[in-house]
Amino acid sequence: MLLLPVLAYAAGQPGTNAASTIKVMPLPATVQIRAGELKLDGSFAVAIHGHTDARLEAAILRLQRRLEGRTGIVLPLGIAPSGTPAVLTVAVKARGEQYPKFGEDESYALEITGDHASLSSETVVGAMRGMETLLQLVSGDPDGYYFPLVTIQDKPRFPWRGLMIDVGRHFQPVDVIKRNIDGLAAVKMNVFHWHLSEDQGFRIESKRYPKLQELGSGGLYYTQEQVRDVIAYAADRGVRVIPEFDMPGHTSAWMVGYPELASAPGPYEIQIQWGIFDPTMDPTREETYQFLDGFIGEMAALFPDEYFHIGGDENNGKQWQANPQIQEFMRAHGYHTTAELQTYFNQRVLQIVQKYGKKIVGWDEILTPDLPKDAVVQSWHGYTSLDHAASEGYGAIWSTDYYLDHMGPAAYYYLSDPLPADSKLTAEQASHIVGGEVCAWGEFLSPENIDSRIWPRTAAAAERFWSPREVTNVADMYRRLDAVSVWLEQDGTLHLSSMDKMLRQVSGTAELGPLGVLGKIASPEGVGVREQLNRGGTPSTQLIPLVHLTDAVVPDPPYRRQFAELVDQLLEDAPKFTASFEELTRTFQQWRGMGPGFAAMATAAPLLQNASSRVLQLQKLGSAGLEALNYLHSGATPPAEWRAAQLALISQSETPDASLLKLPWMGSYRALILATKEVGELKNTDTREWKRKIMEEAARQEPAQKFTW
Amino acid sequence: MLLLPVLAYAAGQPGTNAASTIKVMPLPATVQIRAGELKLDGSFAVAIHGHTDARLEAAILRLQRRLEGRTGIVLPLGIAPSGTPAVLTVAVKARGEQYPKFGEDESYALEITGDHASLSSETVVGAMRGMETLLQLVSGDPDGYYFPLVTIQDKPRFPWRGLMIDVGRHFQPVDVIKRNIDGLAAVKMNVFHWHLSEDQGFRIESKRYPKLQELGSGGLYYTQEQVRDVIAYAADRGVRVIPEFDMPGHTSAWMVGYPELASAPGPYEIQIQWGIFDPTMDPTREETYQFLDGFIGEMAALFPDEYFHIGGDENNGKQWQANPQIQEFMRAHGYHTTAELQTYFNQRVLQIVQKYGKKIVGWDEILTPDLPKDAVVQSWHGYTSLDHAASEGYGAIWSTDYYLDHMGPAAYYYLSDPLPADSKLTAEQASHIVGGEVCAWGEFLSPENIDSRIWPRTAAAAERFWSPREVTNVADMYRRLDAVSVWLEQDGTLHLSSMDKMLRQVSGTAELGPLGVLGKIASPEGVGVREQLNRGGTPSTQLIPLVHLTDAVVPDPPYRRQFAELVDQLLEDAPKFTASFEELTRTFQQWRGMGPGFAAMATAAPLLQNASSRVLQLQKLGSAGLEALNYLHSGATPPAEWRAAQLALISQSETPDASLLKLPWMGSYRALILATKEVGELKNTDTREWKRKIMEEAARQEPAQKFTW
Repeated sequence: MLLLPVLAYAAGQPGTNAASTIKVMPLPATVQIRAGELKLDGSFAVAIHGHTDARLEAAILRLQRRLEGRTGIVLPLGIAPSGTPAVLTVAVKARGEQYPKFGEDESYALEITGDHASLSSETVVGAMRGMETLLQLVSGDPDGYYFPLVTIQDKPRFPWRGLMIDVGRHFQPVDVIKRNIDGLAAVKMNVFHWHLSEDQGFRIESKRYPKLQELGSGGLYYTQEQVRDVIAYAADRGVRVIPEFDMPGHTSAWMVGYPELASAPGPYEIQIQWGIFDPTMDPTREETYQFLDGFIGEMAALFPDEYFHIGGDENNGKQWQANPQIQEFMRAHGYHTTAELQTYFNQRVLQIVQKYGKKIVGWDEILTPDLPKDAVVQSWHGYTSLDHAASEGYGAIWSTDYYLDHMGPAAYYYLSDPLPADSKLTAEQASHIVGGEVCAWGEFLSPENIDSRIWPRTAAAAERFWSPREVTNVADMYRRLDAVSVWLEQDGTLHLSSMDKMLRQVSGTAELGPLGVLGKIASPEGVGVREQLNRGGTPSTQLIPLVHLTDAVVPDPPYRRQFAELVDQLLEDAPKFTASFEELTRTFQQWRGMGPGFAAMATAAPLLQNASSRVLQLQKLGSAGLEALNYLHSGATPPAEWRAAQLALISQSETPDASLLKLPWMGSYRALILATKEVGELKNTDTREWKRKIMEEAARQEPAQKFTW
Repeated sequence: MLLLPVLAYAAGQPGTNAASTIKVMPLPATVQIRAGELKLDGSFAVAIHGHTDARLEAAILRLQRRLEGRTGIVLPLGIAPSGTPAVLTVAVKARGEQYPKFGEDESYALEITGDHASLSSETVVGAMRGMETLLQLVSGDPDGYYFPLVTIQDKPRFPWRGLMIDVGRHFQPVDVIKRNIDGLAAVKMNVFHWHLSEDQGFRIESKRYPKLQELGSGGLYYTQEQVRDVIAYAADRGVRVIPEFDMPGHTSAWMVGYPELASAPGPYEIQIQWGIFDPTMDPTREETYQFLDGFIGEMAALFPDEYFHIGGDENNGKQWQANPQIQEFMRAHGYHTTAELQTYFNQRVLQIVQKYGKKIVGWDEILTPDLPKDAVVQSWHGYTSLDHAASEGYGAIWSTDYYLDHMGPAAYYYLSDPLPADSKLTAEQASHIVGGEVCAWGEFLSPENIDSRIWPRTAAAAERFWSPREVTNVADMYRRLDAVSVWLEQDGTLHLSSMDKMLRQVSGTAELGPLGVLGKIASPEGVGVREQLNRGGTPSTQLIPLVHLTDAVVPDPPYRRQFAELVDQLLEDAPKFTASFEELTRTFQQWRGMGPGFAAMATAAPLLQNASSRVLQLQKLGSAGLEALNYLHSGATPPAEWRAAQLALISQSETPDASLLKLPWMGSYRALILATKEVGELKNTDTREWKRKIMEEAARQEPAQKFTW
């Protein structure tokens, strides 16, 4: 075998990862790539050396099925009998934890030579992580499928790499949960945080307190059998399941069946609005703790994970302030604020959780002086809060920047680091930053669109959690994300399929025409804008069908980058402006002409009408874009009024409206318009410097965007 | 309210249904449409008059959710309290059968006026059928959503309207089954025939004979709990579930666990190849009947339907002929043929089935002299066989023309009538033709592509089973099918989403480019061609991953009709040939240019390589198409050699190849080429007559197609 010089591929070295051709995500800690191939064909038998068990063998069978699905090759399924030749050898030292455990060794090594691949790990979970890498390495050339020759040593940067799904505000069926667990495993994440109770719904069967689900869920809850099934499914994939029961606030749904838990007399109803509500558990009654003892005991037995999430966020304290008995209790105990009373409540709940052998997880608000050191704080309040928890010796999880409902681009999540390079924490303190969790809050999630809210953006966060800190090349991240996104759908997620399906349903036709164009280039406004607009008009509630255009289109659509690339190529080609001229012309013509077709669709499907003014803007943007191309191409500077008019149009198109549709490539479009400013004098200019300035000016004019609360 | 003259809309009157604007499928027995609208808005409350029960209320809630999903309107869910105003009134006379029964009254009447809709029926199932009609009537205009004003009296033409799914050859998980049951209910079908055992797999749990599933399924089978769940799900939607256990042949998978059932010594293995196999139950041993008594008793208790399908087809008799003991038995009983021995076997099985209170269903082969008159014969041998069964007084089900795996167009299934107008049966005999069943045989079905094999074509068959015989306007069928197809996906099927998802997986990219073009215009070859080609090369087996292009593309793609329409418009516009000239030009340019892009994809994804020559043909068809457009537009007759070359290219492109991709619009393309023949002399010709001749000639040259065995 011809061995070319080894390409050093240490992920941390600037510039090197962009040069890579592999599409592995998260990027391994270290990779060396050599020239050559290991063929993938019908001879690809798999042998196990060392430890084996049912979980490992099931994981290998899944690997084989996925390889088959990706290549069409019939593989010898299962484990090759010992003594027969095998192309892939899996050598696992020991079983590891049967139920995956915080801090378990997930490292693995993968060595691929021209005739053999060997995957070795300390634990079964480590081998599973390596199998995901192997699968992502499959490549093709005219001779068929193959693996590149690599030497990989890999392990995660953080031990806690999670996704929270809020099933309280909108219920998500078991199959939705399972396919997203498959997604987690595919990008080496290891925690599924199941936000099971909310003001808007109590989503799990309690046999001890059946009115919780019977009266608090509208019939939409998981049976304990389903929960056990999900836990086993996740464990099989090396994913922990952590239940969250948010308390003492966010508990309206509990109180429908058990009003005595509340700090004010009932009756209570399931909330259908969004926001923060008054109903709060009464922390002064012993019966509250008796109830919680029974409930937590039941749930602690159901969920094997050593951690138990008690929420603890957003208690507005109103019921406590309004209840004379509670006020009296506070005076008697010397509590001056409701926060202090909540500390008391947390302490009591903590004792219960500990009694059942669990450690506690909670949102920032649980961090009070008496919190035991084995607690984990999930931070949604920012770095100050996160670092405070870590410096106090608590496990700390970064979630502030990872709220998917703010609809930030993948790059935003990607670049937010739980432990940034400029962190002021000492090494010891930093060791308490255990990872991060992406949060899928449920106000606007349906089983139809949830996947496209979670994926592929969560894969970018997965790389942040797993790969070395220095892996930060955004372009390379997107290159790999585009591939991983497709593979995730093979594993069961529907994030790439859902939009067209929803657009067909909304429009009643499979011939999407202008709606298909709009869907491809628009993205949903974030939850902040949505709530703001809703407050102005019809308030949004749990009852509103999530079938509007804004529910269908995807956050951070690839078109944002594609359009940026087209504009970049055009401006790079100054002063000729030939590159991408034709494609931009076609694009703008398409926009300019989409009005009549869209109007016809909106007539038949009135649900589309709220996008009419956005479409009108798009038509105008198309016309102006064609004019801009003309000015640039002909080297004629347009009148200042023309440019001012277009910038006003841009500003209008950036203003949120009833469609809740955003045009996320507007920065690039603005650059195109700005570029016309001095195009007449461009012949004698340094066009590189000119372009730099245009881009700078466009960035300066871009309205500030915020992807957290 | 202004009442315009009533538009008579009796479905049977030729020509009238094409003029309709409603998109109801199957078309009701009688419809009258009046001018005006009933608004659909937040006031759309539903009341029940007369009988009510949980099944009816659940059906109404599903109706409301589906209306919400289609319109985005928040509706008052559930049943309006009595005394409050309601827009829709549902009046059901009586419960009907709790578990839906053959012959149950499914009729309903729907009356929609400007301020009220009333749905009335004899049974709950009848009301469910009416709700599907109501849902399909939802329309939109600039003022919002509404129902047209109609008077509908409706009932099915045939009482047995089924879909068979073969889960033996490839297993289909419960969610696949459920979403297809939703599809059946949406088009008023009422039988799900579950083909549960095959040479390639035994798919249901037997507690009595657990080795059936443990050794005969490769782990892929339904638990009895799942089966009960599916039955309840179907019954809730007015769909019967009929299990089939094919015997005495097609039973290899039984014999893996119970070789003593066979007529030759084992051991046996699950078959992975397709075809007809030797393993056959031994009809001469009493132990066989003892086993079947135990098994059928168990299954008869599990499935509530009064019918039980015992298969009975394709026993090749080889094991019987080779077994001296069986030969001796035949001699002793005076049987001269294995068919006579099978009759004996059937009689014995029949007694067992009857003992457990069931009536028998079987394929043509069960029709032997002693078959009791309450048996139902499912015909796959043709009208002779079907009519023979009916004339003998047996219930007869038409399936010969409804084999989906032959990949016929919807129109083919649509026009095949269980009881055609020219039937020679007497009225009494005809009354035994109880309906039809569409058959989804499983050789090439995966959970990913099964929906696109079943839908939307099965909806066309549903109309054949339900609507009056005279409803045969193919263009109007397709107009409605296109709408129903989209709605079916709202109800859970994935037939419109699956192709792009599979193409993304095969190519590893979401930017489908030329692959998207190819996917849209190609369809899969039928099973006959596929088997024929397979026999020449690698034989196809159960192990081959169904991820090839031919598995992804859909039968009868809408593009076939779209392209035909373009060519029709062009020729209609002779001698100018301006209409659709531009669109055809764009189309052909796209084909001509797709080579390099496709080649690049096939390099990265070698699985695509088997389509390379089809793509090359498509490139040539694009070039030739552009030349043809030029000849026509310029009025210059091309040389005869040019036309001969193109006809040869067409013929080549129609020849099945390794891609197993068919270009189903080739007839229209041929017409385009043929049209160039005398285009130079066209100025003085009757162009209408000219076009008619072109079309005739194109039809004559089209290779014969066969969509049955």
